[in-house]
Amino acid sequence: MVKLDRIYTRGGDKGLTSLVDGSRVAKHAGRVAAYGEVDELNATIGLIRLETAGLAEVDAMLGRIQNDLFDLGADLATPDGIEGALRVVDAQVTRLEQEIDAMNADIPPLRSFILPGGTRAAAFAHLARTVARRAERAISALAEAEAINMAALRYVNRLSDHLFVLARHLNDKGASDVLWVPGANR
Amino acid sequence: MVKLDRIYTRGGDKGLTSLVDGSRVAKHAGRVAAYGEVDELNATIGLIRLETAGLAEVDAMLGRIQNDLFDLGADLATPDGIEGALRVVDAQVTRLEQEIDAMNADIPPLRSFILPGGTRAAAFAHLARTVARRAERAISALAEAEAINMAALRYVNRLSDHLFVLARHLNDKGASDVLWVPGANR
Amino acid sequence: MVKLDRIYTRGGDKGLTSLVDGSRVAKHAGRVAAYGEVDELNATIGLIRLETAGLAEVDAMLGRIQNDLFDLGADLATPDGIEGALRVVDAQVTRLEQEIDAMNADIPPLRSFILPGGTRAAAFAHLARTVARRAERAISALAEAEAINMAALRYVNRLSDHLFVLARHLNDKGASDVLWVPGANR
Ligand code: B12
Ligand code: B12
Ligand code: B12
Ligand SMILES: C[C@H]1O[C@@H](n2cnc3c(N)ncnc32)[C@H](O)[C@@H]1O
Ligand SMILES: C[C@H]1O[C@@H](n2cnc3c(N)ncnc32)[C@H](O)[C@@H]1O
Ligand SMILES: C[C@H]1O[C@@H](n2cnc3c(N)ncnc32)[C@H](O)[C@@H]1O
Ligand SMILES: [Mg+2]
Ligand SMILES: [Mg+2]
Ligand SMILES: [Mg+2]
Repeated sequence: MVKLDRIYTRGGDKGLTSLVDGSRVAKHAGRVAAYGEVDELNATIGLIRLETAGLAEVDAMLGRIQNDLFDLGADLATPDGIEGALRVVDAQVTRLEQEIDAMNADIPPLRSFILPGGTRAAAFAHLARTVARRAERAISALAEAEAINMAALRYVNRLSDHLFVLARHLNDKGASDVLWVPGANR
Repeated sequence: MVKLDRIYTRGGDKGLTSLVDGSRVAKHAGRVAAYGEVDELNATIGLIRLETAGLAEVDAMLGRIQNDLFDLGADLATPDGIEGALRVVDAQVTRLEQEIDAMNADIPPLRSFILPGGTRAAAFAHLARTVARRAERAISALAEAEAINMAALRYVNRLSDHLFVLARHLNDKGASDVLWVPGANR
Repeated sequence: MVKLDRIYTRGGDKGLTSLVDGSRVAKHAGRVAAYGEVDELNATIGLIRLETAGLAEVDAMLGRIQNDLFDLGADLATPDGIEGALRVVDAQVTRLEQEIDAMNADIPPLRSFILPGGTRAAAFAHLARTVARRAERAISALAEAEAINMAALRYVNRLSDHLFVLARHLNDKGASDVLWVPGANR
């Protein structure tokens, strides 16, 4: 079990750190970068929740996602082939899809991109959406170099779409979305 | 025309995605990373606007910039040499320079760096400034590997300076700026 | 001495820039990326301070850290071996350790990770924590390629732990921390 008490151990002062199986790697190794970006994504979702505390369903969705992201972090921090590792599973991806479908049902389709912003909650959801995509790029880079659980990639891909639909949901179900006008200021 | 309706297509679940011309590339490819960072920059500007809604001129500037950033995204998502591509043009860079000059006219020069922060609006402008510079690094990395529209690089370089001057403007025209004192706490 | 007056010089429009010793490098060079990420970290700490202005001790700690981060930026922007360079020193790391110990003294140990969030101040401290770790990855990548001052790496490693303990301190000394439950939603 994870134990956090002393917090600073000085063990990583030379730029090396440990994975779940104890192997030592550079802090900028692909695997560490991947779960580091997921950690940042998780913090960004914490910012959305500052604005959605009063919306019980949204808050519950985001709480589940934050917990999932530690499952994802543990997954990424455990090299392929380790017995008994905690892994993201497709049921978590499916849950995201169901939530997307439910939120999207009463939102009109778009014919251009949306300027990110609007309500406070939507603006932070857009930020998290872009950080999810940055995390996805780090996981996709890792997948090129090492074997990973492909459900991890599916999870984070779906999460960025979830956050997009959530942003629209939080902008009055899309009613206050402002659209990109290609080349308007050229 | 862009159409957003189903949102999740599962097409990118294996870490590959499409550019504007339909070519398939990894999600961590330089081009995708570049417009992904620009997307994050756009979201960060959405956070500034949460704090400047009451300032009509600032809000209008930021709205134009957000629209420009989708022109920039389209530009970066379209490989060099594609006919009829939407490209950033120098008139957009010049508009930024004029806005910088106007804002900077009544702000005193500095003899050290500014600690990022101050008013809420200025603090988020500083954040966006640093994200603009991260996006610039991604575009500069792309430019090393592939031909790009050099106006894209000019645009984002100027934008980070615009956001710096905007931050000072939003901190009481620089009056409440706190300066770095080299080595003060050593 | 640093002088900021014209702000935009157009000197970096082709993707090259200068270090403190005048040498020209790409904007995506490891050294530039490292101080660029430190600049973003500094901006993120500016966001925490928006929420902690009323807490005199916390505000003073964060102000010192922001000033240190420009020392760190100057250090990283000055290649190894330059005479009279401003460098981070271990006294700055020790100060962070003392602050961690003081804050951690009355916070209970943890048996799982904390979902990032809680109070506004704590949520932004978690964000800064993850950005500190991103900056650390950039510095660690730089250290692999070039000689650096190893105190720089110690400083940023300790800073992320400081921000973790600060986040708990700001969440009612850990009383309102919500813990990760491994695999809870699978
Ligand atoms: C990977 C990792 C991270 C990653 C990803 C973690 C994730 N899951 O998302 C991230 C980047 C998030 C991270 C962050 C931090 N981490 Co960390 N982290 C680790 C590391 C390497 C592995 C942790 C992990 O996820 N293990 C996988 C899980 C699944 O394993 P587990 O909890 O043991 O659970 C298994 C079993 O125990 C069992 N189990 C679990 N719970 C239960 C419950 C029951 C009832 C049962 C029966 C079984 C059971 O089943 C699980 C499946 O196998 C450990 C070091 C290590 N090797 O353990 C450090 C470690 C825990 N981290 C540490 C620190 C300091 C931190 C940070 C404070 C750093 C910072 N400044 O930001 C933060 C805290 C973040 C937070 N919000 O709380 C320190 C703690 C030092 C200390 N003693 O105080 C450690 C020990 C590293 C070190 N320095 O040596 N970390
Ligand atoms: C690049 C890209 C992005 C980039 C950059 C886009 C930019 N411009 O900044 C970024 C990262 C921002 C992005 C984000 C998203 N995207 Co996207 N994106 C694309 C992609 C590959 C190209 C879009 C583009 O910019 N085209 C360039 C523009 C200029 O072309 P255009 O709009 O067709 O315009 C031309 C003509 O139509 C014409 N035109 C345009 N408007 C008008 C108007 C008039 C009156 C006239 C006469 C002509 C005209 O002139 C233009 C110049 O040539 C498309 C897929 C594809 N190949 O089309 C997906 C695509 C549109 N995206 C998609 C999605 C899901 C998203 C996100 C929701 C993902 C997410 N979870 O974050 C977000 C939404 C962001 C938002 N804020 O709304 C999906 C939509 C799926 C669906 N059917 O619902 C697509 C189809 C990809 C896919 N999965 O297959 N995206
Ligand atoms: C590295 C760097 C950065 C880095 C890191 C800096 C850091 N310290 O963290 C970062 C990324 C933060 C940065 C940001 C910016 N920068 Co800059 N930066 C530089 C650069 C290359 C070096 C600055 C530096 O840190 N020098 C090291 C310090 C220690 O040197 P120093 O101040 O001269 O101090 C030494 C001596 O003077 C002396 N000293 C200093 N103070 C005192 C006081 C006394 C009493 C005494 C006796 C001695 C003394 O001791 C010091 C130790 O050697 C300069 C260009 C250059 N080569 O100078 C541009 C430069 C200053 N930056 C510039 C700009 C525009 C910016 C930004 C506005 C860019 C942007 N849009 O974001 C921001 C502003 C950020 C802010 N918050 O204010 C421009 C200014 C142009 C102008 N004339 O207006 C410059 C000149 C680059 C250029 N374009 O040519 N920058
Ligand atoms: C909507 C568009 O965004 C691009 N795309 C897909 N995944 C990512 C990612 N992780 N980061 C940045 N861009 C991405 C593709 O080009 C897709 O078509
Ligand atoms: C102000 C200083 O910031 C550095 N610089 C210029 N462009 C970038 C960027 N995109 N990211 C980080 N640092 C940059 C150069 O060293 C410049 O002189
Ligand atoms: C708590 C855990 O976080 C990982 N770790 C250590 N430093 C970093 C960093 N800069 N970025 C991401 N992850 C890091 C290590 O695996 C450590 O054990
Ligand atoms: Mg996707
Ligand atoms: Mg510049
Ligand atoms: Mg550490």
